[in-house]
Amino acid sequence: MSSIWGDNLKVSLFGESHSEGIGVVIDGLPAGEKIDMDELLGFMARRSSTGGKTDTPRMEKDYPIIMSGVVNGTTCGTPVCAVIKNTNTRSGDYEQLREIARPGHADYTGYMRYKGFNDIRGGGHFSGRLTAPLVFAGGIAKQILSRKGIEIGAHIFSVADVYDEHFDLANTNAEQLKEVSKKYFPTINEEYGKQMISAIENASTEGDSVGGSIECAAVGIDAGVGNPFFDSVESKIASMMFSIPAVKGIEFGAGFGVATMKGSQCNDSFYIHSGKVLTKTNNNGGILGGITNGMPVMFRVAIKPTSSIGIEQNSVNFVKKEDAKLKVNGRHDPCILRRAVPCIESGMALSILDLIL
Amino acid sequence: MSSIWGDNLKVSLFGESHSEGIGVVIDGLPAGEKIDMDELLGFMARRSSTGGKTDTPRMEKDYPIIMSGVVNGTTCGTPVCAVIKNTNTRSGDYEQLREIARPGHADYTGYMRYKGFNDIRGGGHFSGRLTAPLVFAGGIAKQILSRKGIEIGAHIFSVADVYDEHFDLANTNAEQLKEVSKKYFPTINEEYGKQMISAIENASTEGDSVGGSIECAAVGIDAGVGNPFFDSVESKIASMMFSIPAVKGIEFGAGFGVATMKGSQCNDSFYIHSGKVLTKTNNNGGILGGITNGMPVMFRVAIKPTSSIGIEQNSVNFVKKEDAKLKVNGRHDPCILRRAVPCIESGMALSILDLIL
Amino acid sequence: MSSIWGDNLKVSLFGESHSEGIGVVIDGLPAGEKIDMDELLGFMARRSSTGGKTDTPRMEKDYPIIMSGVVNGTTCGTPVCAVIKNTNTRSGDYEQLREIARPGHADYTGYMRYKGFNDIRGGGHFSGRLTAPLVFAGGIAKQILSRKGIEIGAHIFSVADVYDEHFDLANTNAEQLKEVSKKYFPTINEEYGKQMISAIENASTEGDSVGGSIECAAVGIDAGVGNPFFDSVESKIASMMFSIPAVKGIEFGAGFGVATMKGSQCNDSFYIHSGKVLTKTNNNGGILGGITNGMPVMFRVAIKPTSSIGIEQNSVNFVKKEDAKLKVNGRHDPCILRRAVPCIESGMALSILDLIL
Amino acid sequence: MSSIWGDNLKVSLFGESHSEGIGVVIDGLPAGEKIDMDELLGFMARRSSTGGKTDTPRMEKDYPIIMSGVVNGTTCGTPVCAVIKNTNTRSGDYEQLREIARPGHADYTGYMRYKGFNDIRGGGHFSGRLTAPLVFAGGIAKQILSRKGIEIGAHIFSVADVYDEHFDLANTNAEQLKEVSKKYFPTINEEYGKQMISAIENASTEGDSVGGSIECAAVGIDAGVGNPFFDSVESKIASMMFSIPAVKGIEFGAGFGVATMKGSQCNDSFYIHSGKVLTKTNNNGGILGGITNGMPVMFRVAIKPTSSIGIEQNSVNFVKKEDAKLKVNGRHDPCILRRAVPCIESGMALSILDLIL
Repeated sequence: MSSIWGDNLKVSLFGESHSEGIGVVIDGLPAGEKIDMDELLGFMARRSSTGGKTDTPRMEKDYPIIMSGVVNGTTCGTPVCAVIKNTNTRSGDYEQLREIARPGHADYTGYMRYKGFNDIRGGGHFSGRLTAPLVFAGGIAKQILSRKGIEIGAHIFSVADVYDEHFDLANTNAEQLKEVSKKYFPTINEEYGKQMISAIENASTEGDSVGGSIECAAVGIDAGVGNPFFDSVESKIASMMFSIPAVKGIEFGAGFGVATMKGSQCNDSFYIHSGKVLTKTNNNGGILGGITNGMPVMFRVAIKPTSSIGIEQNSVNFVKKEDAKLKVNGRHDPCILRRAVPCIESGMALSILDLIL
Repeated sequence: MSSIWGDNLKVSLFGESHSEGIGVVIDGLPAGEKIDMDELLGFMARRSSTGGKTDTPRMEKDYPIIMSGVVNGTTCGTPVCAVIKNTNTRSGDYEQLREIARPGHADYTGYMRYKGFNDIRGGGHFSGRLTAPLVFAGGIAKQILSRKGIEIGAHIFSVADVYDEHFDLANTNAEQLKEVSKKYFPTINEEYGKQMISAIENASTEGDSVGGSIECAAVGIDAGVGNPFFDSVESKIASMMFSIPAVKGIEFGAGFGVATMKGSQCNDSFYIHSGKVLTKTNNNGGILGGITNGMPVMFRVAIKPTSSIGIEQNSVNFVKKEDAKLKVNGRHDPCILRRAVPCIESGMALSILDLIL
Repeated sequence: MSSIWGDNLKVSLFGESHSEGIGVVIDGLPAGEKIDMDELLGFMARRSSTGGKTDTPRMEKDYPIIMSGVVNGTTCGTPVCAVIKNTNTRSGDYEQLREIARPGHADYTGYMRYKGFNDIRGGGHFSGRLTAPLVFAGGIAKQILSRKGIEIGAHIFSVADVYDEHFDLANTNAEQLKEVSKKYFPTINEEYGKQMISAIENASTEGDSVGGSIECAAVGIDAGVGNPFFDSVESKIASMMFSIPAVKGIEFGAGFGVATMKGSQCNDSFYIHSGKVLTKTNNNGGILGGITNGMPVMFRVAIKPTSSIGIEQNSVNFVKKEDAKLKVNGRHDPCILRRAVPCIESGMALSILDLIL
Repeated sequence: MSSIWGDNLKVSLFGESHSEGIGVVIDGLPAGEKIDMDELLGFMARRSSTGGKTDTPRMEKDYPIIMSGVVNGTTCGTPVCAVIKNTNTRSGDYEQLREIARPGHADYTGYMRYKGFNDIRGGGHFSGRLTAPLVFAGGIAKQILSRKGIEIGAHIFSVADVYDEHFDLANTNAEQLKEVSKKYFPTINEEYGKQMISAIENASTEGDSVGGSIECAAVGIDAGVGNPFFDSVESKIASMMFSIPAVKGIEFGAGFGVATMKGSQCNDSFYIHSGKVLTKTNNNGGILGGITNGMPVMFRVAIKPTSSIGIEQNSVNFVKKEDAKLKVNGRHDPCILRRAVPCIESGMALSILDLIL
């Protein structure tokens, strides 16, 4: 673990919001994999702020410079490093945070963890910007998986109290996943998407923010992938998902819903269809005993509302150990759900690729 | 990962339900730590079936033989291995499972993962019995943590549709955690506990089973423990929790509740009390940016109903690829929540110890 | 690393010389591999003392109890744990060592490492006995490799100032490796073997001990195994070899001989033979850029003379910090080379299996 | 392992000789460590070609751009990434190597390992250039160690058949290590250094190259660092040293010399001096049972002659599977010993820092 994730595929993130650059090293990618740069940049763009109403006005091009591991657009088997230069930085905004903790942020915990030496400019290493190289890595993983018949997709399942429809747990397919991924504001039912955007705008007007949840699925994974206990598919995916800032919960298949089910309801009945072993329901999210059963692998994650809000908050000066008031300036997203979707897809793609390599 | 978990503390499980023995190797325990065997056996007993109405009639003494790493009741710094012999085995019960998958179980996925060579007797390596050595390891970790001022406790938060009270997220303390742990059926409010037991008995009568959820907390952890991104406290704990059979979801602090909160509600305001930095609420479950903030670390896990039920189910013969009916014989728990509590506490103790070593 | 070695195959040793038992957990063995127990016990017997003139009089049956991972003599894919009970222990012999360091041994360093809590009985975890489970693991690896066409063999290359012939670096084959392995005192030239035994007996008579070196080779490994830099074949093998007590040096191919060569001599010329890429010489020991080139992989290790000798030595009481005289009692090998050969073969087998899995 | 090395300190190399850049990510450096950039660049300069007679005419500035992990010249605790741009590249030189293997190089093994997708320009990832970021990392480690009282130094012990004096195994000190490190051609006895340079020039004139060996020592390490078996100090250092191109052997302390010693000679007698436990000799190279004993940690490595020579060699076209002649063009060092010294020091510094963190 540490700043490195994975067993067969190792992903390592580096960088601070206002350092020279941020980036990623991906080790273990098979040699000979074509990287479609247009597709990759398009995928990364989904994570970028468009400056639209639901996003931060801080817009960065986030162009990845591939330092190594790729020759003529094809992986050569050695570690792929990509760097994204930090350009649009306004370090002055953050000076007050050297001593006063923004509630919901890692200012105080970072200070304690790094004995006061942590880089506070723009949230430093804790910045959501670090998800840009993660999405670079995830985008490559998605392309490789796609060539192996595995598709990954995610949609905004909820924002505030507005809920989208569920993926059909037992019958989701590659087409549905691809289709929802193409949308600017990815919901299955676009009507609900509009209501979500309204909820975000309302919060934004109040200087507040809203949270939500994302549902993610992967189809095309063979049965027999994963391991019992410590290297279960759920362990692998969850360890990745909780690496993504603002994720506070994860549930697979029926998730917390299993807690109120009886065994006779929760057990997914097996049946044979066209010579394949399938299940009628998919309460287990495609995973039994830590190992895939060939059904769609599915989970939902809870994403907390953006911690940076324009409303004055109670806080402390953690150096002087005294109470303080805080009004966070700077540029923030009133809701990060839209931009979080490709992050979640990336984490899923990296998890699955690590498991099948 | 693989069968080995942890960074500074490595935990490795081995064994099958009906093999010669099951066990654990714990590497990285500090030298010089006293092990109170009575306390440890008492802790392990909480995981054992009592033969009571909510448990399986298969009762095993589960006595751990310490092979190494302990001299005169004190750790000597080298790996601690403990073995529990398998004695009360009825392998005949499982012969039909060589080809017919029990819904909810790993029969089919294990077959696919291990190309048909998996040990099917009693569920083999996938058996819940493997949590016995995990609890052995966790019990030692709990003792070490306790000497460092860190206490861990858990209670059954729900069974079917009966809910216990919450731990007070921002104010739980060591006394409350210890008190609830002492109970045979650990709920904060014993009245709710009785209702849960009724729900279990009702399901049992129908040959069915029920699920539920467990809430776990740790107090006394300093601020500054953990890491951003891949080695976040949430990643560490979640990777462990999804190693425990039947866990299908985990949420920290307010968990999925954050999805419907506004930032101004979800952000935990800081304040100073007796020179310490505290938060008014604890929606983040004691963790910000992957690092502890000194508040109680808290999470809930969803536990699915026992997959083995007495009711006939639809399944398949996965070798012959044809539909089949299945009635699971053998001895089963109608609800594993009570016995799962020390497993969850153990996973938490190992996670925290790994993080602070 | 820590007490666990390997990437795809994880090997974990536990136990102390006089604890309840010693053993090993091997994780990552493929499912469906037959284990020939007679062959395995025969291999382990090569490591055991025969009570002969070159060995210690402490004889142990070293019978491995397989706790898990094997069903009907076949691996089932989950971790294989084997335990060897400690029976023939005379703990009294070691009591004086609690404070006085045996030169060449780990008494003082173990004391410092484990803050005085280390198990000193029989050398504790530092005992050469721990190589018994390593040889158990290595013996299984050898059987698996053999079925894949890879054979491993080693011989005593030198004892004191007596040298055996070299393996033919560029032309060693499976037959030669198997043949030398069958010998009680494995040298290529048995005449030199007799001289070595004389040298050992002479040292033994003086209460002294002698060192030597072992040459090991593996044939049948395809070109393209291994990695550049940190996971080079040499790094992998060396990290394992220096885990074996008493090894103080390792060299691959021409080894230290390359230091006095010119490039034109040291470079192994390539040529084609029957459509295969081969090299005329094998100064690189079958490894270029950390990756196998299809030639025999070869190395030599230096083994120091047994540290336990009957002659009085100058030492210290490291607790009282004062000089001391020491005469080591107990039962010791005047030379461990013969018994070390299967340990080296085991380390090599585990290294190669880890690399090709 | 893989492209990542270390347990507490993780070092990850990336880059190819002619890619956009090469670099390193160092994870686990403590926060708050000052980096003296002048000293660091000076250390890196020792690895660079000076264009002098013993070096390649390819001169690169090798200026490291620190992307992350350092604020105001001080580590902030998060991963440090440094990138060195590749500028002075002549890719045309290497085109013939796509099919014809340079003896002693990784052209053929790289082709087999990466299925023909490896970057062949300038040796790709196998290039000695990759040691530049390793030396960047090692230079930082050296500075941190120095502040903890640990000094590391190395000298050219031999070139061809010319040998320098040994470090005094039992009495080397920080001053000697620092002094030898300052020299352009680091030998203890400068007269021998001159003879070595002559030997190099002679080989160069013939279009040939020469090998040699390097001796490295670290002083100031406390007793009790390291672990038995798989994480022994020797295993750690050796795994790193065999990551450095051209290293074919390593020996600790008396190394292969122990093979001809008797126990009574080889055992290092302990004695007390000024209340400290010391040994008279240091045949064990400061390591007993895998753990430091407080004496200087010492080893020698064998470095093969540069594989690139101007003389025509026999080789093969490994794609067409036919014999071929090869004359290597391009710019090469007739001997890399001088430039390898800071690489060896770096590997040692990283190893020791990883062990003590």
